Order: sequence, then structure tokens, then C-alpha cells
Amino acid sequence: MPQRLDTRDDAFESDFTALLGAKREEAADVREAVDAILVDVRERGDEAVCALTEQYDRLALTPETMRVSEDELDAATNEVAVDVRAALDLAAQRIEAHHTRQMPKDDSYTDSLGVTLASRWTPLDAVGLYVPGGTASYPSSVLMNAIPAKVAGVERVVMVVPTPDGETNPAVLAAAKRAGVNEVYRIGGAQAVGALAYGTDTIAPVAKIVGPGNAYVAAAKRAVFGTVGIDMIAGPSEVLVIADDTANPQWVAADLLAQAEHDEAAQSVVIALDDELGDAIALAVSSQLVELERRPIASVSWRDYGAIIQVQSRDEAVALANRIAAEHLELAVDEPEALMDDIRHAGAIFVGHHTPEAIGDYVGGSNHVLPTARSARFSSGLSVMDFIKRTSVLSCTPDALAKLGPAAITLARTEGLTAHARSVAIRSNQT
Amino acid sequence: MPQRLDTRDDAFESDFTALLGAKREEAADVREAVDAILVDVRERGDEAVCALTEQYDRLALTPETMRVSEDELDAATNEVAVDVRAALDLAAQRIEAHHTRQMPKDDSYTDSLGVTLASRWTPLDAVGLYVPGGTASYPSSVLMNAIPAKVAGVERVVMVVPTPDGETNPAVLAAAKRAGVNEVYRIGGAQAVGALAYGTDTIAPVAKIVGPGNAYVAAAKRAVFGTVGIDMIAGPSEVLVIADDTANPQWVAADLLAQAEHDEAAQSVVIALDDELGDAIALAVSSQLVELERRPIASVSWRDYGAIIQVQSRDEAVALANRIAAEHLELAVDEPEALMDDIRHAGAIFVGHHTPEAIGDYVGGSNHVLPTARSARFSSGLSVMDFIKRTSVLSCTPDALAKLGPAAITLARTEGLTAHARSVAIRSNQT
Repeated sequence: MPQRLDTRDDAFESDFTALLGAKREEAADVREAVDAILVDVRERGDEAVCALTEQYDRLALTPETMRVSEDELDAATNEVAVDVRAALDLAAQRIEAHHTRQMPKDDSYTDSLGVTLASRWTPLDAVGLYVPGGTASYPSSVLMNAIPAKVAGVERVVMVVPTPDGETNPAVLAAAKRAGVNEVYRIGGAQAVGALAYGTDTIAPVAKIVGPGNAYVAAAKRAVFGTVGIDMIAGPSEVLVIADDTANPQWVAADLLAQAEHDEAAQSVVIALDDELGDAIALAVSSQLVELERRPIASVSWRDYGAIIQVQSRDEAVALANRIAAEHLELAVDEPEALMDDIRHAGAIFVGHHTPEAIGDYVGGSNHVLPTARSARFSSGLSVMDFIKRTSVLSCTPDALAKLGPAAITLARTEGLTAHARSVAIRSNQT
Repeated sequence: MPQRLDTRDDAFESDFTALLGAKREEAADVREAVDAILVDVRERGDEAVCALTEQYDRLALTPETMRVSEDELDAATNEVAVDVRAALDLAAQRIEAHHTRQMPKDDSYTDSLGVTLASRWTPLDAVGLYVPGGTASYPSSVLMNAIPAKVAGVERVVMVVPTPDGETNPAVLAAAKRAGVNEVYRIGGAQAVGALAYGTDTIAPVAKIVGPGNAYVAAAKRAVFGTVGIDMIAGPSEVLVIADDTANPQWVAADLLAQAEHDEAAQSVVIALDDELGDAIALAVSSQLVELERRPIASVSWRDYGAIIQVQSRDEAVALANRIAAEHLELAVDEPEALMDDIRHAGAIFVGHHTPEAIGDYVGGSNHVLPTARSARFSSGLSVMDFIKRTSVLSCTPDALAKLGPAAITLARTEGLTAHARSVAIRSNQT
């Protein structure tokens, strides 16, 4: 049974704090194993990658067969059912359209002192995309990670995807082709992260690595951070639904279960503005669980991390939602817009009864890579911003330097950095 | 003597690769010590912070005296010379003006299917700013870190600054007051990072911690990442100057030394487009070094990490500059704009003979917190973007859901996530 909380209970604050603090994931400490793999890849390159792939994925590779050929990508695409291809294409189009709007504009201006200041955005040269193998190998995630990079102007998007025992996922390869991924390699684990970060004879290094993975992949990304950029380390997925008496308990229950089926550590929480609603939702979840394909996973998630929180007012609901800072927030209420204005922290908001979170997972157009574990308090979902960087440009005329110089000299001397002061003064003999 | 490289030499490529790969900083492994401090702060709060401050800073504090009072901030401001205060104010105004232009606009649109998509930017609730004590305690860095946060709309900016033996830096406190810092605490080290991340009875927790620090501070920031956001871990500072025969060797030398005086691990590199220029710059550096206050530091930096690279063309210069991806890039050439268009990777560019890098350190208006150690290939300098985050908003009408739903259902089923499919289908009986 999921936890039941009620803001009217004396124990509410401590119960809610415990819910917020619940650790849903114990990161296995695989640092030593990962460090050894990374050193091996750095030193032996392709040779290490092939040996480790044989060891972990039971797949014999050579530098020549590491890469998935264009023919294979075409064949995989043809293997995918026509309606799935059409759905991937619709999703890709919508992701492209939405992310294109995210591109910031360069800025350049000359101020009253004659100083020209500019902000110039440029794409990364090359990006690596990690795609997990097995059951967590999602074509939708390929689109969500690769398309923003291509929209940003990244010329070289390199995908790695392990194929244990040589088994590939045609839909994943079709998505890679549709998204414009430039190179695909059938490798995974820490060795694939190492290959992307350091480069091998076969795989040129990238500037940043994105995409989800298991504990080994996460540890490898942490370890190579600095050599390359990385995206956020994603935790288990979560949804928070705020529902009032206009909500359909069956619909809310379906959304809670959609989250719960991801992972035993996923979390589904509902804030109920109506006293009877909580019971109705709990009942609907129980009855829908029975017929669920992924019932073993969803039932554990709902039992261990699910929660129904009874509140007395919209203000209470908003205050709790801002503390939870959920990855996904559904507003299953009448007049959701009014509520939305008070929400400060959420990865993505799904507005009204007809916007189930699953739309955002696939075809909404916004990105489904979103901050988990309350990190929406300080970070954003994946976007084109993750694939571009800004260069500041400063340009002084001799006159502007003469006007600004004295203040720079004063501050540099205050900080004891007299060579800084000198570099300004030498240009106008203000020594 | 600095390294001399020449693209005409056979050994150039291997020498340049070695220069790129030179590790200027060995991160001391202080993880265990830091982990213990963080556990202590998490468990004992104020008590731990006071005890650790007594131990490391030889300063007896109580929860009541931890915070620097408004009166103390006023007194410190009055202690600062009038010209320094005026310079801080000019710098602050210019930083405010520039960073205000960086604020992105919210976006909202309804597409042809009737789906409304929005991107909403909101500030972080609270930010912690670490300011080092002792000689690296720079008022300019207080402005550069705190002002973008305030411009972004962060309501609570909390500064921590160690005051070993109780010694404060009035200019740092004056800068904090000018920048609108809301709370200042006289604590430092890993214990201050822990207090900001976890909160104590006296210090409420923040959502993100920014600012430079020693190995302990860096390790503590890495450790609390996830609980809070952090900025990039800054490495030693560096400058790259591209100079042609129109450059004044004395000016270039002054700029190289301004960088070198920061730190023995700082790096100053010049790419010379003119054969005699390299010698002239080397000579100018040697002669200027003699009279430098921070000669012991600058001479070691220049000897160990300085480099003069002789090239034959602008194209060569650009190619090398893009590989170096310097934190600071000066274009001390005729027609710098033409060169600039080809530069893809740099933290900040200083254009022309009259824009010494030191202007950007203090009063240019752009931020002086910039990506070091080649990370300009994948990251940007500090900006308002570090203090806001984006929430995606998705809203479907029943009609839009009916149009988009089938594709979402198809993809969910392809991924084996049938509860996802169900959450869409249940709303239109497309089960």
C-alpha cells in the first residue's frame, strides 16, 4: 500500500519530510572497477574496448566491426513496422520544431563608453550519446538526446549502444538514423564512455557525453567529467499529480501507474484536493494494477514509494509541490493555469485533464530528459542549451580603455594583482 | 624559460599535444577528510561548524556570532577607500547592465494540432557563494558571482568567507553589500559547503553553491552535488594571445604576466604570426618580470607553463586556438574581427590591441568566471543562466490529445511500456 498523508495530521510535517528525504536509489560503489576500465581504454584504445565488450557483452568485435554500418541502419529501419516509423517521424518533427525555438540569439552592443560587448553562441564540435542496451533501450530517448544536439548545430553526434550477445534493437537504430546520428558503435558500459572521452583509433573523441546508463556508466561519466562535459546523472523517474474533484480517478491512476512501471524505484505521488478523491484513486490503482503487463515492477514502486497526500487548499498543494520539485507535475484540476503561476519548481508541467505525462514522453515536442530527485530546484531538462556554449567578447577603443582603465587599475591594486594593473596602465602610460 | 614551439618543426605536433595535455594541477585526494566533515555538519549542524572553524581558522564562533552583521558590513564599507568604492560601484553597474541582457524570455505557443507548449524560466530560491579567505579573497569575484544571481531574481544569496584568526577583508564585505548579498557568514572550508548544502539551525540550506575554493572546498562541492547544484570546478587560469606584427611586444608581455601572477599553475601562451615577435615578447617578459611585485609566482608560471608558438598563417593560428580552447583569448592583431569569426572555442575573447584581459577581470561588464583547462569546448562562463532553470509546459485540448494520442500509444507499446499507452488510451477509450 502506498503511504497516506494528510496535512491535518500532527505528524504530517515529519512524514512529509521523510517522504522528501527517502533515498530511492543506493548508488553501487563501482568506482574502482570503472577506474580500471577507463585506464585500460585510455592505454590500449580499441584493443581494450573489444576485449571488454567480449567480456561483458559476450560479443567478439574488431575495430572494423565496432561500427554499425549505414547498410545495417537502413536494414534496421526497414525492419521497423510502418506505423512505428510514422510515429517516430511525428515525434522527431515535433521535437525538432520545439527545440529550434529554444536557440538563443547572439547579442552585440556598444555602450556609452565605447565598449563593445557580445555574447556569441557556438555548437559543440562532437557529442557522444549513450543508449542503454536491453529493456531500457528506448528509441524515444535516442530522439530526445540526439535531435537537440543536431538542432544546436553539432556536426558529429556519436551514439554508443551495447548489443549483448549481438542483439540489436531495430527501433533504436531507426531512431538514430531519423535523428541524424552520424556514427553508431555497438559498445557499452564504462568502456564505451572511455572510448568517447579519450578517443581510440576507430572512435574520435567527443566534447560531451549525454544519455542514461547503469551504475557503471554513471560512474564512468563522473570520472571523465572535466575531460569532457556530461549531462546530469539521472535518478529514478517520478510524477506528482495535483488533483481536485474534477479529476477522473481512473485517469489519475493510469498516470501514476505509467510512472510506476518504469522502475521499482520510480515514484508516483498524488496531492488530493478532495477528501474522497484519495480513496477513489487508491482503489483505481489497485484495480488497474491487476491487468498491467509490468505489474511486478509497478506494484513494488507503488507500494514502496507511492504516496497520496490529502490537502485542504490550493495554497497547501502549491507549497508541497514546490518542496517536492517533481520531474513531472500533472495539474489534473479545474483552472490549472491559475495554479501553474504559483509553481516555481518542476521539470515539466502537464496542464489539465487531457495532458497525460506520456504525451510528453513521446510526441509532445518538449524533452523527456528532465531533472529528477528534486533537482528541478536548480536545473532544467535537456535542451539545445546543453549542446552550445557562449563566448563573451569584449572590445575597447583606445578612448574606452582610457575611461575604464583607472577603475580596473584601482581594483587590481586593491587585490594585490599589480601585473593586472600594469597591463592596463602600460597602454596609456598610466603607470 | 618558456617553451618555444614552431609549426615548421617536425616535432611540432607531438610538442603541441604535450602542451595541451600538460596537467597543471594535481588534485589532492582529500575525499575522506571532506566526507567526515560533511557527515559531522549534517549530524551536528552549527555545533560542528563552530568546532571546525575553531580548529581550522583559529576562530571561536557561536551560532550568534557566525553571521556578519549589517553594522559590520556598513563599517567595512566605510573602511574602504573612496576610489575603491567608486571602482566597485562602476564594476557592479556594468556587470548588472550586461547580465540583465542575458535574461532569456519565456516562450509560449499553440501549434497547429492545438498543443500549447511553453518554456518558463524561474530563479533558484537560494544560492550560496563561496569566497576564499586570505590572498585569494577577491572583491571582484564577489561581484561576478553575486550580481548575476541577483539579476536572475534569486531572493536569497548567502555568502560564506573564512576569516582565519578573525581577519576580514573590508573590500570583500563592501562588495558583498554592493552586490546585494543577503547573508554573510564568517565560515569556510568543507564545513561551510556542508552548512550551505544541508542547512543548520542558523543557516537555511541553499539550492546551489558557486564560487572558487581550495581542494577541500572543491571536493566538498563535488560531494554535495545532487543535493544542491554546483558551478564548474575552476582550474588554474590561463590566457592565449594571438599576436601579429602590429602587436606591441611590451603590451603582450604585460598581459602574459598579468595571467602568470595569479598562480604558479597559471598558463600564458602566445601564438606569434611574426617571426621576430616571439623573441621580442620573450625579452619583454624577462625585463618586466624584474620589477613585478608577484615575481616569485609569475616567474614560476612563465617558466613551467608559458609557451611561445611560432606559426606561418592566420589559419594555423585559428586551428591551434580552437584546439587550446582557452579561458581567455586575446586577439592582438590587425583586423581582429576577421580572425574572430573563425574562433569556435574560447571562454572570452578580447579584441584588438586596446582590450587587455584585465579589463574583463574587473570592469568590462562580462563575467570573469570562465571555463578553464579546455572546457570552453563544452561549457560557458558564469551567467544568469546558472541561476535560473526552465520548466517545460505542455497542454493538450481533448482534440489535440485525440490527434497525438495514437502515435504516443504506438511508441509506448514498441518500448514495452503498456501502462504509458494505457494512460493515453484511457482518456479516449482507445484501449
